[in-house]
Amino acid sequence: MSNHYKFECSSCETEYSPSPSLIECEICDSPLNIKYLPTHYSGGDNTSLEIPLPLNSQSELFSLGEGNTPTVNLTNTSALLDVNLLAKNESQNPTGSFKDRGTSILISCLLKFGIKEIVEDSSGNAGSSISAYSAAAGIKAHIFAPETAPPPKISQIKVYGATHHSTPGSRDKVTESARKYAVKHNLIYASHNLSPYFIEGTKSFGYELLSDTSHTFPTDIVIPVGNGSLYIGVYKALTELISYKLITQLPRMHFIQAESVKPIASAVYNQKWNNKMVLQTKAGGIAVGSPPRLNQVINVMKVSGGECDTVHEEEITNWQLELARTEGIYCEPTSAAAFAGTSKMIKSGKIRKGSTVLVPITGSGLKDTSPV
Amino acid sequence: MSNHYKFECSSCETEYSPSPSLIECEICDSPLNIKYLPTHYSGGDNTSLEIPLPLNSQSELFSLGEGNTPTVNLTNTSALLDVNLLAKNESQNPTGSFKDRGTSILISCLLKFGIKEIVEDSSGNAGSSISAYSAAAGIKAHIFAPETAPPPKISQIKVYGATHHSTPGSRDKVTESARKYAVKHNLIYASHNLSPYFIEGTKSFGYELLSDTSHTFPTDIVIPVGNGSLYIGVYKALTELISYKLITQLPRMHFIQAESVKPIASAVYNQKWNNKMVLQTKAGGIAVGSPPRLNQVINVMKVSGGECDTVHEEEITNWQLELARTEGIYCEPTSAAAFAGTSKMIKSGKIRKGSTVLVPITGSGLKDTSPV
Repeated sequence: MSNHYKFECSSCETEYSPSPSLIECEICDSPLNIKYLPTHYSGGDNTSLEIPLPLNSQSELFSLGEGNTPTVNLTNTSALLDVNLLAKNESQNPTGSFKDRGTSILISCLLKFGIKEIVEDSSGNAGSSISAYSAAAGIKAHIFAPETAPPPKISQIKVYGATHHSTPGSRDKVTESARKYAVKHNLIYASHNLSPYFIEGTKSFGYELLSDTSHTFPTDIVIPVGNGSLYIGVYKALTELISYKLITQLPRMHFIQAESVKPIASAVYNQKWNNKMVLQTKAGGIAVGSPPRLNQVINVMKVSGGECDTVHEEEITNWQLELARTEGIYCEPTSAAAFAGTSKMIKSGKIRKGSTVLVPITGSGLKDTSPV
Repeated sequence: MSNHYKFECSSCETEYSPSPSLIECEICDSPLNIKYLPTHYSGGDNTSLEIPLPLNSQSELFSLGEGNTPTVNLTNTSALLDVNLLAKNESQNPTGSFKDRGTSILISCLLKFGIKEIVEDSSGNAGSSISAYSAAAGIKAHIFAPETAPPPKISQIKVYGATHHSTPGSRDKVTESARKYAVKHNLIYASHNLSPYFIEGTKSFGYELLSDTSHTFPTDIVIPVGNGSLYIGVYKALTELISYKLITQLPRMHFIQAESVKPIASAVYNQKWNNKMVLQTKAGGIAVGSPPRLNQVINVMKVSGGECDTVHEEEITNWQLELARTEGIYCEPTSAAAFAGTSKMIKSGKIRKGSTVLVPITGSGLKDTSPV
């Protein structure tokens, strides 16, 4: 296996040799990150940017054509909100969400380890993504999803041939069921929330901002956060770009949660939160009551000078329709939550007028229950 | 307006000044094409390819980030069929189908003419595409769709805010209703099947094959054809590339129709066909009983040395699942028809073993009724 990186605990910094079955620190149970050996990467030049990845060469990359999504200028909404609003449309990935970036690297690494069968839990997007890539890679996948997941996402998981385990109870119960199943059947638990490989894949979103926006590099990035795999991945990419001197300033990184499920926002504002307070939300992609990377998310927000906010269910639906009707973009509710939050943060002054604000279209509206 | 192109009848070659309301030859009723003035285009160089378009500059392009879709190598299916099989994944367009390429140019030109309200008819993909681009462009759209169109496509048309006219009867009846409505209300009939602008947009698919496949330029291209807007657009692009000496040989261009709706294949094989023979097909995108560009499609097939074939309903579903389960690609039934046809043509020898065959994923399976 590769020797150019290690696993490192995100909390106590204990280091480990990479392993597909290791997803938490054996000492403090915190999630793990990938740490590259110093001086291994130089950043390449402007024409061939070198992205640090847990792969030895491009030929090890297992891809279905993910990434290289367009960034579009939302001119009508920019005028409305008095900012320069950009959307990077991640619904234009192979399975219709940004998860394909993380899945590509996760599956690439699992193939290197010779893994043939995996277990994963998901509200739907990661599940369908892992189901698709596993099918193409010849890996048998067991996907645990909440029984309340939207029918199009469930169909998508099944159409790729994964075994679908419909699971009652909260999103956290689904995780618990998946972990138990993996232990019982001695299978790899390929959690997109915990595997350190997944975040290495979402980094490409951050790298692409360099070529996407050229003269209007965002001053602010607003991301809907459940577990934070995109939020943390983009932050990691931006810090790498700074270390290569390809950008000089870290954009302010803000995050949005649903009012119905707000463990991280509650922690930021020292508000009471526990799992029993979870309510149903349309934004299924961020309905995570106990996010394992909570501390990492808050750290990114603080280091980048960002803020956070929460949004109500009707704001989510309003913004989903607003974007479709004024910008021609049909996003999933999870993504609409970020736009609703952006609007709130501009009104409250958390984001300054005139800023260049980038928000991801995290997934396609076609994958969720129709709002009309 | 521009003076670097004219409209030209695809049959009698009568020329006309461009107009948004002119969609058929006033003499022989045949569809119109765009004809660029000689020597206007040189093809640019390898780094900045110049595509002839009915626009005066890049700034006139109205885009939601369409195109630049990935071409992926279907290694598992290649081994099965004994060819080098490539798929260009058009589901990775803003509204989930290749139609966005045509719509982008059509709407760009309608904006130049100052058009504010349009009528269109569609089995769903073009309707949702035109609904999205119209919303962003501030154009009011009336979309006529068959009442049997898949629910996700109807939702998508409506979510962008277009007025949806659910229409009973055959696909051709839907066209008739749309045309009557446009005449009655004195609106522009922005038909993706008839407007000469639409095909200019689908050309970009053909141009991208140059950079997509580099060392494996396809010897054969197989496209599902209803009206042929992609088939004709790709052919036009390839002939332009030949005129610029950027490719030396035209790939063989094959087309596939559903056995249930086969007006063009019937014409090729001198079989009886009339509109009353139309049967229900899952491949809604090619369910066109009286295609206005029938002669153009047959001409492309003959000039390129291509062939055609038809496929049964069960072959369509089998290939939709086959691609999902072996390649991780969830395509719409219309696209699956092309893969089913490709398989047949390889078995019958119409396509030679060892060929490099490119097939488009014309749209996302998420937009259609689920096969599971």
